[in-house]
Amino acid sequence: MIDVAFLGTHVRPTATAVVIDVLRATSTITLALASGYSRVLVAGSIDEATALRTPERTLAGEVGCARAPGFDLGNSPEETLEPRTAELVLATTNGAPAIVAAAASADEVLVASLLNMGAVLEQLAAREDVLLVCAGTDGRVSMEDVYLAGRLSAGLDGARSDAARVAEAFAAAYPDPLDALSASAGAVGLRREGLESDIAFCAQESIVEVVGRLSEMVEGAALLTAEPTTAAAPAAELHT
Amino acid sequence: MIDVAFLGTHVRPTATAVVIDVLRATSTITLALASGYSRVLVAGSIDEATALRTPERTLAGEVGCARAPGFDLGNSPEETLEPRTAELVLATTNGAPAIVAAAASADEVLVASLLNMGAVLEQLAAREDVLLVCAGTDGRVSMEDVYLAGRLSAGLDGARSDAARVAEAFAAAYPDPLDALSASAGAVGLRREGLESDIAFCAQESIVEVVGRLSEMVEGAALLTAEPTTAAAPAAELHT
Repeated sequence: MIDVAFLGTHVRPTATAVVIDVLRATSTITLALASGYSRVLVAGSIDEATALRTPERTLAGEVGCARAPGFDLGNSPEETLEPRTAELVLATTNGAPAIVAAAASADEVLVASLLNMGAVLEQLAAREDVLLVCAGTDGRVSMEDVYLAGRLSAGLDGARSDAARVAEAFAAAYPDPLDALSASAGAVGLRREGLESDIAFCAQESIVEVVGRLSEMVEGAALLTAEPTTAAAPAAELHT
Repeated sequence: MIDVAFLGTHVRPTATAVVIDVLRATSTITLALASGYSRVLVAGSIDEATALRTPERTLAGEVGCARAPGFDLGNSPEETLEPRTAELVLATTNGAPAIVAAAASADEVLVASLLNMGAVLEQLAAREDVLLVCAGTDGRVSMEDVYLAGRLSAGLDGARSDAARVAEAFAAAYPDPLDALSASAGAVGLRREGLESDIAFCAQESIVEVVGRLSEMVEGAALLTAEPTTAAAPAAELHT
């Protein structure tokens, strides 16, 4: 069954959970892994991320869309294009709890964005029990997450739930992903902070081939590593 | 703000909550009130409904879509067309908890179905903070509920959440409500039980003018009474 959870807190037992936080956590995680960070530690808050700081880790995180005080990077995917260390610590208020909740009820947890949509679909092709988990924003459904859930559901074979069909119909209403992302409540906040370019960046489809996979919990953070697809170079070759 | 909760368990504080369980609880409640039952007691289980039995109350409820053993009626709206008593007790596994959850976080709770969609929209016209609550089925999102939420949202003025816009886009994909209801997982169960006619019945738009409103909790059940719209006859005239 292909199913969709409209909020990160609404996961249920499943074989494979795919966490979606298009603006911007899962886009940033995906691009960081594709850019050469070998490990991304996803923390649930600025404080938790700060506690993970070591000289070997780059800290990324936002407060109200802007870079957190004292952090190396904000939460713009493009800031991860040139890795500074092997490990990135990313503080994200919506993505992290969604990943942790998914980990508690799924055999495996992947991370999806539009940036790696094609690679995610390749990974999911052989799966029969998939829950697409929309992280949402502060307990509210985010349309950009539902959009990607709908695109992923539409790209998979097999029976689907009513929730998956709602997401598919919603995605079908937006021929251009940028329109779906731009219309979202999340886009309003990004534009207010002068981060409009992030919206267009996150709307790019299938520009990288790696898929973040939850490896284990490390000091309370979710450790994600790159899962190369059959079409991509081995993850090792992408790492610094 | 016009907002949508995709599941009955996902309510948040709001001025007005509108509970939606199209197949079939809120359709049955609505038709019962329109047909002349003056009070509908909504119980969360067959056992709770049984405990409310008195000679002055008609008991309605289903087990797997079929009439519950020993009950007077099943959960088909049409069974309420000729009231047997002044009070109807309706056992519903998804609608009742959604109403109770809504009551805990909303100033007022209304009940909507396609049958009284126009009357609900009239009631909501002056409201600014509306949460449309899709009851769902056993913790799963039901497309027929999202469909009505989308129709209601589209009929209201004011700012709307991402969730409301997802529901609106979904509803817009189905020009005929019967198509949306027929495509749902809930319809599969009704057809299996030979209750296909309920699907077409519940797909009728705005055939009655009353709106069920939560009055109070009575012996653990939610007491709903009829709220007449300005366009309708006073509720008293509709009662037997």
